[in-house]
Amino acid sequence: MTRIAAITLLLIALMGTSCRQEKEISVSSPSGHIVAQFLTDRDGRPAYRVAVNGREVIGLSHLGFDFQEAPSIDKGIGIDSFQTRKFSERWELPWGEQRHVDNSYNELTLFLSEREAPGRHFSVVFRLFDDGIGFRYHFPRQEGMEHVVITDENTCFQLTGNHTCWWQPGDWDIYEHLYNTTRVNRIDAIAARSKNVLAQTHIPVNAVNTPVTMKTDDGLYLCFHEAAVDNYAGITLKVDTATLCLQSGLVGNDFGFKVKTKTPFSTPWRTIIIADSPGGLIDSKLILNLNEPNKIGDISWFKPTKYMGIWWEMHIDKSTWQMAGGKHGATTQNAKRYIDFASANGIGAILVEGWNTGWENWVGIDDREGVFDFVTPYKDYNLKEVVEYGRKKGVDLIMHHETSSAVTTYEQQLDTAFALMQSLGLHTVKTGYVGTIIPKGEYHHGQWMVNHYRRVLETAAKYKIAVNVHEPFMATGERRTYPNFISQEGFRGQEFNAWSTDGGNPPSHHTIIPFTCLLAGPMDYTPGIFNIKLKPYKPNNQVNTTLAHQLALYLIIYSPVQMAADLPEHYQNHPAFQFIRDVGVNWEKTKVLNGEIGEYLTIARQERETGNWFVGAVTNENPRTLTIRLDFLEPNKTYNATLYMDGKDAHWDKNPTSYRIEHQVVNSNTELTLTLAAGGGAAISIL
Amino acid sequence: MTRIAAITLLLIALMGTSCRQEKEISVSSPSGHIVAQFLTDRDGRPAYRVAVNGREVIGLSHLGFDFQEAPSIDKGIGIDSFQTRKFSERWELPWGEQRHVDNSYNELTLFLSEREAPGRHFSVVFRLFDDGIGFRYHFPRQEGMEHVVITDENTCFQLTGNHTCWWQPGDWDIYEHLYNTTRVNRIDAIAARSKNVLAQTHIPVNAVNTPVTMKTDDGLYLCFHEAAVDNYAGITLKVDTATLCLQSGLVGNDFGFKVKTKTPFSTPWRTIIIADSPGGLIDSKLILNLNEPNKIGDISWFKPTKYMGIWWEMHIDKSTWQMAGGKHGATTQNAKRYIDFASANGIGAILVEGWNTGWENWVGIDDREGVFDFVTPYKDYNLKEVVEYGRKKGVDLIMHHETSSAVTTYEQQLDTAFALMQSLGLHTVKTGYVGTIIPKGEYHHGQWMVNHYRRVLETAAKYKIAVNVHEPFMATGERRTYPNFISQEGFRGQEFNAWSTDGGNPPSHHTIIPFTCLLAGPMDYTPGIFNIKLKPYKPNNQVNTTLAHQLALYLIIYSPVQMAADLPEHYQNHPAFQFIRDVGVNWEKTKVLNGEIGEYLTIARQERETGNWFVGAVTNENPRTLTIRLDFLEPNKTYNATLYMDGKDAHWDKNPTSYRIEHQVVNSNTELTLTLAAGGGAAISIL
Repeated sequence: MTRIAAITLLLIALMGTSCRQEKEISVSSPSGHIVAQFLTDRDGRPAYRVAVNGREVIGLSHLGFDFQEAPSIDKGIGIDSFQTRKFSERWELPWGEQRHVDNSYNELTLFLSEREAPGRHFSVVFRLFDDGIGFRYHFPRQEGMEHVVITDENTCFQLTGNHTCWWQPGDWDIYEHLYNTTRVNRIDAIAARSKNVLAQTHIPVNAVNTPVTMKTDDGLYLCFHEAAVDNYAGITLKVDTATLCLQSGLVGNDFGFKVKTKTPFSTPWRTIIIADSPGGLIDSKLILNLNEPNKIGDISWFKPTKYMGIWWEMHIDKSTWQMAGGKHGATTQNAKRYIDFASANGIGAILVEGWNTGWENWVGIDDREGVFDFVTPYKDYNLKEVVEYGRKKGVDLIMHHETSSAVTTYEQQLDTAFALMQSLGLHTVKTGYVGTIIPKGEYHHGQWMVNHYRRVLETAAKYKIAVNVHEPFMATGERRTYPNFISQEGFRGQEFNAWSTDGGNPPSHHTIIPFTCLLAGPMDYTPGIFNIKLKPYKPNNQVNTTLAHQLALYLIIYSPVQMAADLPEHYQNHPAFQFIRDVGVNWEKTKVLNGEIGEYLTIARQERETGNWFVGAVTNENPRTLTIRLDFLEPNKTYNATLYMDGKDAHWDKNPTSYRIEHQVVNSNTELTLTLAAGGGAAISIL
Repeated sequence: MTRIAAITLLLIALMGTSCRQEKEISVSSPSGHIVAQFLTDRDGRPAYRVAVNGREVIGLSHLGFDFQEAPSIDKGIGIDSFQTRKFSERWELPWGEQRHVDNSYNELTLFLSEREAPGRHFSVVFRLFDDGIGFRYHFPRQEGMEHVVITDENTCFQLTGNHTCWWQPGDWDIYEHLYNTTRVNRIDAIAARSKNVLAQTHIPVNAVNTPVTMKTDDGLYLCFHEAAVDNYAGITLKVDTATLCLQSGLVGNDFGFKVKTKTPFSTPWRTIIIADSPGGLIDSKLILNLNEPNKIGDISWFKPTKYMGIWWEMHIDKSTWQMAGGKHGATTQNAKRYIDFASANGIGAILVEGWNTGWENWVGIDDREGVFDFVTPYKDYNLKEVVEYGRKKGVDLIMHHETSSAVTTYEQQLDTAFALMQSLGLHTVKTGYVGTIIPKGEYHHGQWMVNHYRRVLETAAKYKIAVNVHEPFMATGERRTYPNFISQEGFRGQEFNAWSTDGGNPPSHHTIIPFTCLLAGPMDYTPGIFNIKLKPYKPNNQVNTTLAHQLALYLIIYSPVQMAADLPEHYQNHPAFQFIRDVGVNWEKTKVLNGEIGEYLTIARQERETGNWFVGAVTNENPRTLTIRLDFLEPNKTYNATLYMDGKDAHWDKNPTSYRIEHQVVNSNTELTLTLAAGGGAAISIL
């Protein structure tokens, strides 16, 4: 008898005079160690609980909705019937951090309805995986509930302890905050508002953005997020520091509602990844698995690649995006210089920012409509010539569309912009959404923008274009359905080290993001800065890691487009650049070898085409020694390993560029001891 | 390494001067014994093959389409990329012949495009199950291919032998033909047209309807059909008796096309059930598995039930549908008589036909629009009184909507008709489509009607109404998605025994339909006639089985609404009626104990709620002895079995009502020897 058949229906008679009774229906994960219980209490309020190995990790948590011009859904709900399903598939990622994804869950669907008028009916679907749980609501088409305006979704997550939490404020507009590490009862998003170095931000209440990650005192790791957000608002989690209850706080607008939709509709999946180790969070593919299979078909026209770009030189003020001022970065000549270097070093593509007119006057003003088009190059940049030059040299151009958040302008020009790319044979675009959204009153993470980002993906797919979104709405696994959604920003990237007034990204940043925002999907961090102190351009800024740590980031942070972000002249003749030449970008397998959130992390990945292995290890401000076993290698086979390590005297601040390179013959029995400096790291290629 | 990962890509260099090469990509079923190979030949014509245990059962078979005002899709096709998936789920039938359904397959999706203009792209998806194969085409949204008019789908099935075939003519309008048993090269649908006792029929070419079943000379059983037909035309299979090639012949209309649609669209699944025994065909749930999960939600308002009806008495001319003539069957008083009997015998519902005005003038004329409404009872029938009387006695009314194929009239009145049922608390309707379709030029199995039947299902679901369709479009597994699609006719039912001029249904009919049309879904055969010779009503007609055979049909033919079709007075005080009282209609498990197509069949089923087992065995015109083991019973437990068997001298024609009843204590080791008369059977209840 399978577990799904073992689903139990308990009727618990209640004490006292109430003639009503509680109904509990539970479903377990395939292995049985995670159990979710659904119930309607004596007032008919729907609720659920989650237990792991018999211990409750989500206490009694109620579910409900508030609507405009309709009563709330909260109590008087009855269970009409329920349905179970046991599911397992193995599917293939056309590109990714691994080739195959296993998707196994037990599903419980509860068909519910209000016992009194208006008698609305809906269902709640739970999917129990061995690495966590997802659940969502579905409202079928029904009379009296055609059009729906949701003012709040009241989905609760009752924590059962005051967990250690890695969080950032619940910002409706941007994810570019450093993560805070506190107990849940010390979360204070409003205070976090203060150190603001951002072009836009909106943090209305004490809430956190997702993914948000926690560690319980008995060593369980939880990550709360959502999956498959479509025609709905993004979520934040409102924190009650007294009761330790998290409640969904949908991102809204200035017009008094959160979601406008029609029946039938399903909400996004509410997800909790559950793991007994930090690495378990990274191994989880739960969020991908809760998305629909590939909808756009053939994606073979997109090839994962390393790329360089006319980009960092603007961030460090060597040149400028705008042409005015005589320091224009995006010139035909400079582009050819990057192409020559990329071509000579096996880098497949270059990004050129500031190529199109409008950059003199693009940000910090309200009148941004029509500032940019995406077809008119500056006079000193011959787009066609650059594309053809690159093609001769085997280097593709990554197109750049900075919308300055003039979203309507961008939608008007989308087809024209993509048609130009198609005519030039370009298959990748980086989009940007700097600044507050026009039209006013909308926010980056609200339903209106969610629909915009989705429209761009769908339109791009028609033109065989892959999209790397900056200032995005946080990924929720869409890349399974739209594999042309290749990467995004959605966190505090390398660029902050070039100009932020708050000291940039501390070394610990790279030991937190793999366990938080990176669980949402691939991200474009733009690692590989060798000129750590930014001399001579930025005396008051620097990158806060060692050089070896920068190399390790190619493994620590996954993206199918991985930038070699520094300038050609800083890579030229640099021995350590060999690692960037060698390292893969498309993976057969990924193995997390060790890690503690905020402390350190080591990841090994095997390249798809070659079978080569690469390892990256990073530490926070503390130096440490990590021992790893290469037991992931094929037995009875020897490999040539090249180790890029911190120099003996290396230190992220005092001596960040001190490094050494060692060569070693290794096999599956080899143990390596990696000595990481403060803010240091290690990178290994095994060929 | 899983089999799906073992998918092989072979490049076969061709002889001769051609520089082109064939590409073959193959995928195997989970167990590996069924393998499908996809290839594009040297002219770029897409094709496939299927092998079972290394032996080819479908030879090289090409795929393609003809369109109106667009070139055919046939050659110059290239493979852009392909994608694989391994899938397994266990889902639950809310009602059915069994509770759980296992759905495991390996999937191969081929993304294809024309190498030259118009450069259309599409994909072919293969799903390999251990019980067969399904494949379908998908056309994504694409420029230059928005609106699509298909004049022919050219999907081939190249047989590899001159198999024994159980077939009926490829009729665009009706499935009420007897099955023919011939070799494939002897199929002659045009000749089969002749013996026509039908209100409508249209057989344009030498084709067969599906499901069509075959037996190879080395003992393999194949059933060809389709799954998930939606906004598309039904299929027939055109037979080339020389080459033994079957080719899809879509059902059309008199307007020169087969399917009008828009991209994106998917075709129905083309299915082949493959089994090494006849019972394996019945065990297969491949067609259900190729349909989408439940879309309509809670279905607990539908309860499987046995029912009686004011129906057979009209077929044998004891009474009439129309009120004129003074022999009206559907009177309040007669309905109450049936309710009383049903209530006294644990029968949950009654059907009343001829209750609404219009039957004086309903068939055989062109002017059928507006003849029926579905709300106006005859003067001598008080609908509300009957419903309330039944409710007091615990007997539901099954509503009846005969459309006389005036389909537009029915669509206009659908909401009104269903609203009346809703106001009366009725949850089941039997619909009928006797006669040629109005509007003229359309046929029962074409796209226009497929869409109508689907619209009725969807509308019914909104009113919590379950539908039993007579003169339907053949089921293709829709009941998984729309579990309110409970049963249908779609074959030659019991009624033919009451009036057909061709001798009615021979005993062998019941040993063929379980292996052919019944593989499509539940069907409403209306068994249980005790007054076999139809005395005194129909001296020239009779039922062509023994009485025990009639009882066995409750197991042999599955339907969640199972009629006790004879008149109350023929059941009254009849000892054998106890079996109909006892037998279940909703099953936990089904086991085929033995069978040969056209010869005999024994099926055991376990009831869901009670765990009781019931067994039914039938034979064709030949008497035979069957030995069965009750090893499906729980070990170490004793049961009381009641055996309803043919009398020693029983014979379907000479002495059909001779029967005996035996009681026996049995357990899981018991062997029973069943002696079946010519046209006889046996029915066993194990409580």
